[in-house]
Amino acid sequence: MIRTYALPHIERLEPYALGEQPKPGRVCAKLNQNESPYPPSPAVMEALRAMPEESLRRYPDPAAAALREAIAERTGLAPEQLYCANGSSEIISLLFKLFVGPGGRAAVADPGFGLYQTEAAGYQASCVPIPLLPDYRVDMDGLQASGADAIILIHPHAPTGLLTDTGELERLVRTFPGLVVVDEAYIDYAPSGSSALPLIAKYPNLLVLRTFSKSYGLSGLRAGYCAGNAALIEALAKGGGIYNVDALAQSLALAAVKDDAYMRDSVSRVVATREAFAGELRRRGYVVLPSSTNFILCAPPAIGPDARTLYRRLAERDIYVRHYEHPRLQALLRISIGTDAEMEWLTKELDKLATESG
Amino acid sequence: MIRTYALPHIERLEPYALGEQPKPGRVCAKLNQNESPYPPSPAVMEALRAMPEESLRRYPDPAAAALREAIAERTGLAPEQLYCANGSSEIISLLFKLFVGPGGRAAVADPGFGLYQTEAAGYQASCVPIPLLPDYRVDMDGLQASGADAIILIHPHAPTGLLTDTGELERLVRTFPGLVVVDEAYIDYAPSGSSALPLIAKYPNLLVLRTFSKSYGLSGLRAGYCAGNAALIEALAKGGGIYNVDALAQSLALAAVKDDAYMRDSVSRVVATREAFAGELRRRGYVVLPSSTNFILCAPPAIGPDARTLYRRLAERDIYVRHYEHPRLQALLRISIGTDAEMEWLTKELDKLATESG
Repeated sequence: MIRTYALPHIERLEPYALGEQPKPGRVCAKLNQNESPYPPSPAVMEALRAMPEESLRRYPDPAAAALREAIAERTGLAPEQLYCANGSSEIISLLFKLFVGPGGRAAVADPGFGLYQTEAAGYQASCVPIPLLPDYRVDMDGLQASGADAIILIHPHAPTGLLTDTGELERLVRTFPGLVVVDEAYIDYAPSGSSALPLIAKYPNLLVLRTFSKSYGLSGLRAGYCAGNAALIEALAKGGGIYNVDALAQSLALAAVKDDAYMRDSVSRVVATREAFAGELRRRGYVVLPSSTNFILCAPPAIGPDARTLYRRLAERDIYVRHYEHPRLQALLRISIGTDAEMEWLTKELDKLATESG
Repeated sequence: MIRTYALPHIERLEPYALGEQPKPGRVCAKLNQNESPYPPSPAVMEALRAMPEESLRRYPDPAAAALREAIAERTGLAPEQLYCANGSSEIISLLFKLFVGPGGRAAVADPGFGLYQTEAAGYQASCVPIPLLPDYRVDMDGLQASGADAIILIHPHAPTGLLTDTGELERLVRTFPGLVVVDEAYIDYAPSGSSALPLIAKYPNLLVLRTFSKSYGLSGLRAGYCAGNAALIEALAKGGGIYNVDALAQSLALAAVKDDAYMRDSVSRVVATREAFAGELRRRGYVVLPSSTNFILCAPPAIGPDARTLYRRLAERDIYVRHYEHPRLQALLRISIGTDAEMEWLTKELDKLATESG
């Protein structure tokens, strides 16, 4: 075997498993990565076309000042309470580099977003898995009592789509002595008033993660940010990479933030489709968890093909949904909300698959 | 003091000092960050304007396959020998995360590129500084005898601009038991045949870093890559971030690579300007190190204002060059090569400053 020169814990690393990529050149419904079915705001495309050569030739603003200013305006926070990154995935990595560290432990609901586990292992840290309650809600007492150095709360949770009560969330932040990270990747799809952002003024141990990948339709851009007490943000600015957010991401995310109305409209459409689709599934005997995100987690009816079979058969038909082998998930499917047409296509194929095997 | 929740070594971190940013809205000559004075290839701008909405909405290719394919074609390497990143600065960070690690030590010539030191400290690793020889060449024997876990060779070196002999470089890679990183950020400005890339086929412990920030005029894009044995690259792919190179960076860097002729032409112009400017300085009594990069390191004549004074006075006149307080550098100026017009402006101002104080 050829030596890799990598450290032993890197050798042992299991990379995060991404959703399957469709075969190129086929018309498909890609409902496995929770991307928005709607394009980014026209203002984003205008900013792209108008990008001057100079912005490519010069190093970008290392502090992403204009973008932070715009986010501050939208959220009512100060720019000093905001840090921008190359996707919120970069911030997830920095959490373990800057706050948890080698030997450190972060409590996170299990099953959750698998990237936390992968990134922890990359820094010789670990995630303490706190099993979801029998009804799939996050076990807030379990997180609190974990004895971990930090807590990660995905809010709403993925892959369940369930929203934690805001009062319970605040209690956790107030009573836990260490850092509490609230990952709000999907918060724009939740009822308004659900976000932990207003708590930042009160709690110096709270860090809230946000992304442009979902509600803003900008997964390809790699732009995310986090909000927290200025002292937390300073640690991120100090220990994060230089020039981590490129000039295009800064300009385009700025255009997206400024056109918040467009984002709200995209989100309303997705939420309407989600509720209609969940209704269709329930009419067919599926158990569907109430979702506050742009995906649903559901169990197919006991009579008929199981989740794993449906996942495989759908992929053969160019419809990509997500299936996990985790014991709490193997009987379930996670389905991103696409356009109405995509969900109708999926419903039709599910009906065919039910009949074929019935 | 408010608790930052950051690890102690992050608290202590000294961020990497960036070149001063010009005051906005002024016509200036920004000769302090070694950016190209020429815009990226027109093909890059075309790719930008033609970018489909879909590329922003969907997650990017996590493997950057098309870009790696194009670089492979240009360099004669296999895609499996290439890893793309959010600027080569991200790779510098990953070196300490994946290969050096907490307590590990990397030998690097001093003075060198300060980011290595900062990134090492972020991972509780350290850089062993190997002083440059009296004539400012890299001390290859000193690197070899350092007892460090890894060696970093900046090739050509920054901030001296000096090129290490390729034979000496190969000897180092052959005889050193650990990882040897050769940072070729400026290699396109060096005589052809200087690169360490052909050595990759022979040495599994060699990793060569490249960037699109300099010769390709794409500092704002954040795109870089490294080349090495497939086992090294696999460790990077496993331990690096997911989706670290956004869709725009992948497409635009691809367009840049495919228009190599344009890059070669930009480089020729910079090299011609560099040689003419170095000649002008030497005629005025400056000592100028022979440069294989897009900047020069020079000592002003002993009679007249010193380097620190010149740096300050030039900045007042909207010309930004770089001055370092390092003992081996404080009598020197590092000047990026701009357009002919910018260098003429600079020469004129230097003449005025020499007279004013003379």
